[in-house]
Amino acid sequence: MHPSPQHVIGVDFGTLSGRAVLVRAEDGEELGEAEHVYAHAVMSSELAASGAALPPNWALQDPDDYIEVLRQAVPAAVAAAGVDPATVVGIATDFTACTVLPVLADGTPLCRLDAWREHPHAWVKLWRHHAAQPQADRITDLAAARGEPWLGRYGGRISSEWEFAKALQLLEEDPGVYAAMDRFVEAADWIVWQLGGVELRNECTAGYKGIYQDGRYPGEDYLAALNPQFAGFTDKLSPAIAALGGRAGGLTASAAGWTGLREGIAVAVGNVDAHVTAPAAGITEPGRMMAIMGTSTCHVMLGEQLAEVPGMCGVVRGGIVPEQWGYEAGQSGVGDIFAWYVEAGVPPAYHEQARALGISVHEHLTALGAAQNVGEHGLIALDWWSGNRSVLVDHELSGVLVGMTLATRPHEVYRALIEATAFGTRKIIDAFNDAGVGVREFVAAGGLLKNEPLMQCYADVIGLPISVIDSDQGPALGSAMHAAVAAGVHPDIYAAARAMGRLRRDVYEPDAERASAYDELYALYGRLHDHFGLSDRELMRSLAAIRVRAAREADR
Amino acid sequence: MHPSPQHVIGVDFGTLSGRAVLVRAEDGEELGEAEHVYAHAVMSSELAASGAALPPNWALQDPDDYIEVLRQAVPAAVAAAGVDPATVVGIATDFTACTVLPVLADGTPLCRLDAWREHPHAWVKLWRHHAAQPQADRITDLAAARGEPWLGRYGGRISSEWEFAKALQLLEEDPGVYAAMDRFVEAADWIVWQLGGVELRNECTAGYKGIYQDGRYPGEDYLAALNPQFAGFTDKLSPAIAALGGRAGGLTASAAGWTGLREGIAVAVGNVDAHVTAPAAGITEPGRMMAIMGTSTCHVMLGEQLAEVPGMCGVVRGGIVPEQWGYEAGQSGVGDIFAWYVEAGVPPAYHEQARALGISVHEHLTALGAAQNVGEHGLIALDWWSGNRSVLVDHELSGVLVGMTLATRPHEVYRALIEATAFGTRKIIDAFNDAGVGVREFVAAGGLLKNEPLMQCYADVIGLPISVIDSDQGPALGSAMHAAVAAGVHPDIYAAARAMGRLRRDVYEPDAERASAYDELYALYGRLHDHFGLSDRELMRSLAAIRVRAAREADR
Repeated sequence: MHPSPQHVIGVDFGTLSGRAVLVRAEDGEELGEAEHVYAHAVMSSELAASGAALPPNWALQDPDDYIEVLRQAVPAAVAAAGVDPATVVGIATDFTACTVLPVLADGTPLCRLDAWREHPHAWVKLWRHHAAQPQADRITDLAAARGEPWLGRYGGRISSEWEFAKALQLLEEDPGVYAAMDRFVEAADWIVWQLGGVELRNECTAGYKGIYQDGRYPGEDYLAALNPQFAGFTDKLSPAIAALGGRAGGLTASAAGWTGLREGIAVAVGNVDAHVTAPAAGITEPGRMMAIMGTSTCHVMLGEQLAEVPGMCGVVRGGIVPEQWGYEAGQSGVGDIFAWYVEAGVPPAYHEQARALGISVHEHLTALGAAQNVGEHGLIALDWWSGNRSVLVDHELSGVLVGMTLATRPHEVYRALIEATAFGTRKIIDAFNDAGVGVREFVAAGGLLKNEPLMQCYADVIGLPISVIDSDQGPALGSAMHAAVAAGVHPDIYAAARAMGRLRRDVYEPDAERASAYDELYALYGRLHDHFGLSDRELMRSLAAIRVRAAREADR
Repeated sequence: MHPSPQHVIGVDFGTLSGRAVLVRAEDGEELGEAEHVYAHAVMSSELAASGAALPPNWALQDPDDYIEVLRQAVPAAVAAAGVDPATVVGIATDFTACTVLPVLADGTPLCRLDAWREHPHAWVKLWRHHAAQPQADRITDLAAARGEPWLGRYGGRISSEWEFAKALQLLEEDPGVYAAMDRFVEAADWIVWQLGGVELRNECTAGYKGIYQDGRYPGEDYLAALNPQFAGFTDKLSPAIAALGGRAGGLTASAAGWTGLREGIAVAVGNVDAHVTAPAAGITEPGRMMAIMGTSTCHVMLGEQLAEVPGMCGVVRGGIVPEQWGYEAGQSGVGDIFAWYVEAGVPPAYHEQARALGISVHEHLTALGAAQNVGEHGLIALDWWSGNRSVLVDHELSGVLVGMTLATRPHEVYRALIEATAFGTRKIIDAFNDAGVGVREFVAAGGLLKNEPLMQCYADVIGLPISVIDSDQGPALGSAMHAAVAAGVHPDIYAAARAMGRLRRDVYEPDAERASAYDELYALYGRLHDHFGLSDRELMRSLAAIRVRAAREADR
């Protein structure tokens, strides 16, 4: 027995900042939190270290910004909670993925070395670095041609966002960096290495982003067929694969110095932000789809059986909780689309009205749109502003809006965009149901939860009750649970989820009349989806090709 | 011989205002002009007389606003010219069409009567009243089933904008108004009736909008098959058909009082704004397509032979100038779409930039868009915000925008909308060429002329030189020519066009490189066009039906 309450810390490394939350290990009560914004944010137009311009679709980060989160946000969360740092028994982290960096054998990032710091390929490639599409296409096409058994586990396509595409781009564009790197490591694992002093690969990113299936990576002959120099790539990945919830090591002296925590406390195996949120909402069994709804939406789900769901991002055994199949799907643009519309499509009057009402433009448009009947705007959109991740897996698809008349008003467009993302979610649910991975409840987390009419719209569109996580810090809470398991406070993630998970059940129930009206609109969405996504996918691909060519001519 | 210069007045009744121009009859020199804006503009959401809400797609006007144009703009134009009103020898008018109203046998509009003024159907239905689509569909389908010989003269479809569709809607929705009206009269003829005291039907609207072909209206058995109560409808149309350029009568004492002109001067037979513009630009022969480009675009063309062009609005012998076949086609929304976008889709920053630059938002967006290469925005739009007049003849079609990404900027959307209207024009030119009515020159008039990058874009898209009318008041100048013919100053419209017509030849020449790039985008436009307009036309029709039903439920 411990004399006083035990505490654990979860740290969520997002796209623009890291958030630390201090949690009571017994029951998951969140006692203090703090955020640290990355000084270098996302480098997509120029490399901070040299001022050199970056090509289109690049997205880099500085790993030292992550260390600063440990130095700033962790002590601040402890201070905010007002507890003795000595009561903290474990720390765990989750990361965006696939966010990946080249390092030496001791974990030193190449970008810290004078020899390499002016090489863009020496830096962290953020998940949304989309410049490896040619490599991704070759990886998919070759795998399909050879009948590689793992391709079906990824819905039939390997994304440009993932490890092998990014590594192949690195090799082909900067062989010097490729030769100098001893390891190509997920940031999710690198941060654990810095905290616990141990190099390990978590099963989650290894499976979803690293094509690690059934105990192995893609074979050397396949890699050599992609590029002879790429044959030995998997030697640059850590051979030690670690199950989620395990103890990676004890907090090192230097990490204790950064964080103000006790040396030697449990450091958990790394995790991914979306996946770690499932147990935070108490999800440890099949049938309940978890959606983390923010700038993009990630869907995760558990299954006892392996199924190949067309267009999913991946299925990995142990990828979410041990011993179950973890499924992942996603929508590349959700909140991002609403933000785009407010910035690029909403006229001054609406901004002024919102200001006068003391609410955000998003809230104003949402409220005006929600006052209408289903279908009253006469619009249907395809939510592909950022391409389509699931179920079409094509980042050259683009947005569509149909049905405008001279009477169409901005709040109607905004509502149509919300609905389009809900229809996109329903497509994903349909794909899971059709593949035998039944979805009977929808559980939501993420920043869009605060938009209640949007959540109600989702319930009406998908025709399922929606439960919501009862935490503003879902990923960090999920990480804290893994810290509690690693520290031995709870025997496993199942027990931790029961004790610490936070969920409000069935907060949104579908309205029968609206659901039926949405069925009709969803059928129209399906027709548009299949036309632009299947029958005439070439149209958008031609538009994209013309755009790239015209922009290149403009640069000359 | 007249002792001093003779003057004539043309009055152009547009969608939002009427413009009067005083012209020297000898050579067409414009000496003075004035505009009067309609007090009630377009009533599309509520009826001013009662405050009652109007259903979707309605568009009404108040005929007394037209009288005010005679009272205000005509004397103001005379005053602006600084000439003696006694030197004005004739007046002529042109109108939007089909803009139509129910009146008593003496010409009194039903909406002026207390018994009817709260009935929406008692008011003027503006050309863009689009609520009679179900009736238009029945009119077309029955004519096709019966093999009515006139259907091919209208491109195979009767528009919801036209007289029979509007009248049948009136009958079926408000039989009381239908029974009370002695005449259902084009505003083009009603205004001449008010000026000259004589009820006549001009050949132009009778033919294009009233299905008057080869000396007769559709037969009674056809009308009875549409609706037994509709059998006698043509009794409510004036039996006296008058050729364009004729003298309808002499200015009445009351009209002389309104206008300040001499009683008894020539009042010409009424005309339509688009058609009257052809002679104003000197067009009195085949091969030259005239486009009046404003809120909508109307295309008119002459031909010596009768041809049935699919999707044209109509072909009428004597409909533009005597003894030639006059062809009409059109795009329901052009400038209206750009105005919609600036009002409903352009964010504050662009308004502020335009203000700082001292230019309009339209000019700002045009300039930013024109700085890009063809195709650089990655967008394609279908210009159907107001439905599609030619070549699909369907006002339940609606706007489409394809290709948006998170990087899409407002000036890119604006340019895509301009291009969509140019592609729509090219579709019409293609239809005429394919039907053997060759288009070798494109002549433009109307408010969009002042947007030079837009005009250049049209030249690049259609691949033809564009000549432009050398007058800001094309329709009113054309009307003034008809006044000169009615007054006997010129023997016929051919002579008047030679003496008074004004044109600048080949002002815009297509650029070969841009034209070739546009060929590629036009092919994509064609694919979208055929998908939404032909293969899956039901999609937009379903959206429109859902919108109307949902709006009706909201009213309950």
